[in-house]
Amino acid sequence: MIYFDNSATTKIFPEALETYFKVSEEVFGNPSSLHQEGVYADQLLQQARQQVARLLEVSPQEIYFTSGGTEGDNWVIKGTAMEKYPHGKHIITSAVEHPAVSKSMKQLEKLGFEITYLPVNERGVISTADLEHAIRTDTILVSLIAVNNEVGAVQPLKEVGDILEHYPRIHYHVDAVQAVTEQRAVITHSRIDFLVLSAHKFNGPKGVGIVYKKAGRRLAPLLSGGGQESGERSSTENLPGIAATARALRITIEDNLETRQHEKKLRDLLMKFLKSFADVRLFSGVEGAAHIICFAMRDVRGEVMVHAFEDAGVILSTTSACASKKSDTPATLQAMGVCDSWSRCAVRISLSKDNTVEEVEDFKKIFDQLHRKFKKIQK
Amino acid sequence: MIYFDNSATTKIFPEALETYFKVSEEVFGNPSSLHQEGVYADQLLQQARQQVARLLEVSPQEIYFTSGGTEGDNWVIKGTAMEKYPHGKHIITSAVEHPAVSKSMKQLEKLGFEITYLPVNERGVISTADLEHAIRTDTILVSLIAVNNEVGAVQPLKEVGDILEHYPRIHYHVDAVQAVTEQRAVITHSRIDFLVLSAHKFNGPKGVGIVYKKAGRRLAPLLSGGGQESGERSSTENLPGIAATARALRITIEDNLETRQHEKKLRDLLMKFLKSFADVRLFSGVEGAAHIICFAMRDVRGEVMVHAFEDAGVILSTTSACASKKSDTPATLQAMGVCDSWSRCAVRISLSKDNTVEEVEDFKKIFDQLHRKFKKIQK
Repeated sequence: MIYFDNSATTKIFPEALETYFKVSEEVFGNPSSLHQEGVYADQLLQQARQQVARLLEVSPQEIYFTSGGTEGDNWVIKGTAMEKYPHGKHIITSAVEHPAVSKSMKQLEKLGFEITYLPVNERGVISTADLEHAIRTDTILVSLIAVNNEVGAVQPLKEVGDILEHYPRIHYHVDAVQAVTEQRAVITHSRIDFLVLSAHKFNGPKGVGIVYKKAGRRLAPLLSGGGQESGERSSTENLPGIAATARALRITIEDNLETRQHEKKLRDLLMKFLKSFADVRLFSGVEGAAHIICFAMRDVRGEVMVHAFEDAGVILSTTSACASKKSDTPATLQAMGVCDSWSRCAVRISLSKDNTVEEVEDFKKIFDQLHRKFKKIQK
Repeated sequence: MIYFDNSATTKIFPEALETYFKVSEEVFGNPSSLHQEGVYADQLLQQARQQVARLLEVSPQEIYFTSGGTEGDNWVIKGTAMEKYPHGKHIITSAVEHPAVSKSMKQLEKLGFEITYLPVNERGVISTADLEHAIRTDTILVSLIAVNNEVGAVQPLKEVGDILEHYPRIHYHVDAVQAVTEQRAVITHSRIDFLVLSAHKFNGPKGVGIVYKKAGRRLAPLLSGGGQESGERSSTENLPGIAATARALRITIEDNLETRQHEKKLRDLLMKFLKSFADVRLFSGVEGAAHIICFAMRDVRGEVMVHAFEDAGVILSTTSACASKKSDTPATLQAMGVCDSWSRCAVRISLSKDNTVEEVEDFKKIFDQLHRKFKKIQK
């Protein structure tokens, strides 16, 4: 099997699973407890926090553990809204966000907030001029996805950071769930206030996320309760999952440069190949993330393509996993101005460092066969 | 070591950890994906849901997986508030709730909701007459803890259910996190609309919770996004954790009657012993949960007691783990009318089926020694 769906989820690293197992067996106390079992658990929790902070080049007090990317995005967005609504109810985001962001915005609209959805160009990228024009005196939040999950488009986070230097009271949030292997998970601009990661996207366990929250920035808690995570995110800590996440992040970030170069190499091979077909259209560009290639074969629907490849042993997806089972047009492609007849044919390859040149060569052969087959049927 | 702090957290069952490991290795797909890896994952997810539903005697469509008890309580409370505020902004709860409930209420108060906190008697139990009197035309939610986490008090859920039969539009929520081994985790009254559990309290993994949500009842999502869990709770599912939770719940519920009888036996031995000391006060009654015994030795502060027992190899806690590190008076004891000089001396024993009569006998010997020591110091 060739697994080309690493943006949907990754398999946990054996080292991270080992950590999960070991912590579950050996350090089962509640970090909030006074006794020694609790103290051991709390020490391990703080070690994990320090390790993550070091890897992301921030302070441990700025790292919070959550249940995943969705909770992180919901917390930053709704937590900003509930904290800052007396100062304003206007929020700026893009038209190409993950549903964890766009659906949170929809909920806030129902509660009377006003959302500006910045348009994107044909490569899925916003214009910083548009962003600057959208800023108002009642703007409380700018929320942008670092690497788009459907096509791999990369937003100009640094340029946005420069603009927001002039508006110190606006919260600047980055959804970096797809950005870890891109080295864009580290805070690329000091103006970024919040950054969200999800462990299962970088070979960590499912059910764990990381939120960077800049010292001094305030959010209303999404989960109130026992006062864990400095009172900002209550719930007994998932210590085995958190320790496993720290380990997976270390492996990922340490291998980062190498991974990116490797993925770029595979991506370039794949793009060159796909471009050689007159009836194939590429939605991802070389300026985008190295691990995502979105394309379509004319008049072959995405689901048909996914199943045909699956029968041949290649796992792809119809853009994002979240949207797979819905009949919706992929939101990002629509925002990029791709017409329905093309966008419903879109499929996504998403790479990891475990993919190989041999797999790419196999893919090319299978693609050739399928292409001939589909063209025959269409005649 | 004698572990008498099972209400803080439990050690994961070896069987549940094995399930976690196996699923992580073998079924790593994203349940939302169209391809076979996703289909396997989705099948396993639905199996786990069916198993949990069968154990709780409800329908699979009424079971939702979350990140823990805190998220469950926050979701039901804030989700009710955001869904039903156009119909009313009044909520009824008790003065002896877990912070996941009481702190959520405090947040809603800031947003203009009005909360009635029902008082409790000297055993920590509300009066149903008080509850009935508190109901108003704008009441949207009644939220009660099934088994109190600090003293084990059991609320009259059935009688409240009977009253709420006359008010079909009010959401009836039960925080059953401490109630699983009490057989009170099953829906004890058909009027209950929502019920929340946490896996790590019944030897499941940390970071997983269960919400029962009655068919037809509506909540605004706390986590919006990719549309998982029928669109009610988005986030890529923590499949290894969910499968492990289903397994732990099965073991727990199958052994339930036996566990409860065993815990009752130990509890009765402990209570009889503690009652024989004139300077020891019991805050838990025999009508309460079988696994929680809260008591105090006059003029010996809870932390001092916890550490003295720890040095002798017995793990207790100062009431709840969440409150351990704060200097707050335990909320439940305060609501029960216990004066500060007694409540700051409170400690909690919480039992599991793994505790033994021999451990109770050892505890008694150690208690005798410590009692003599403390009395000597006090002279």
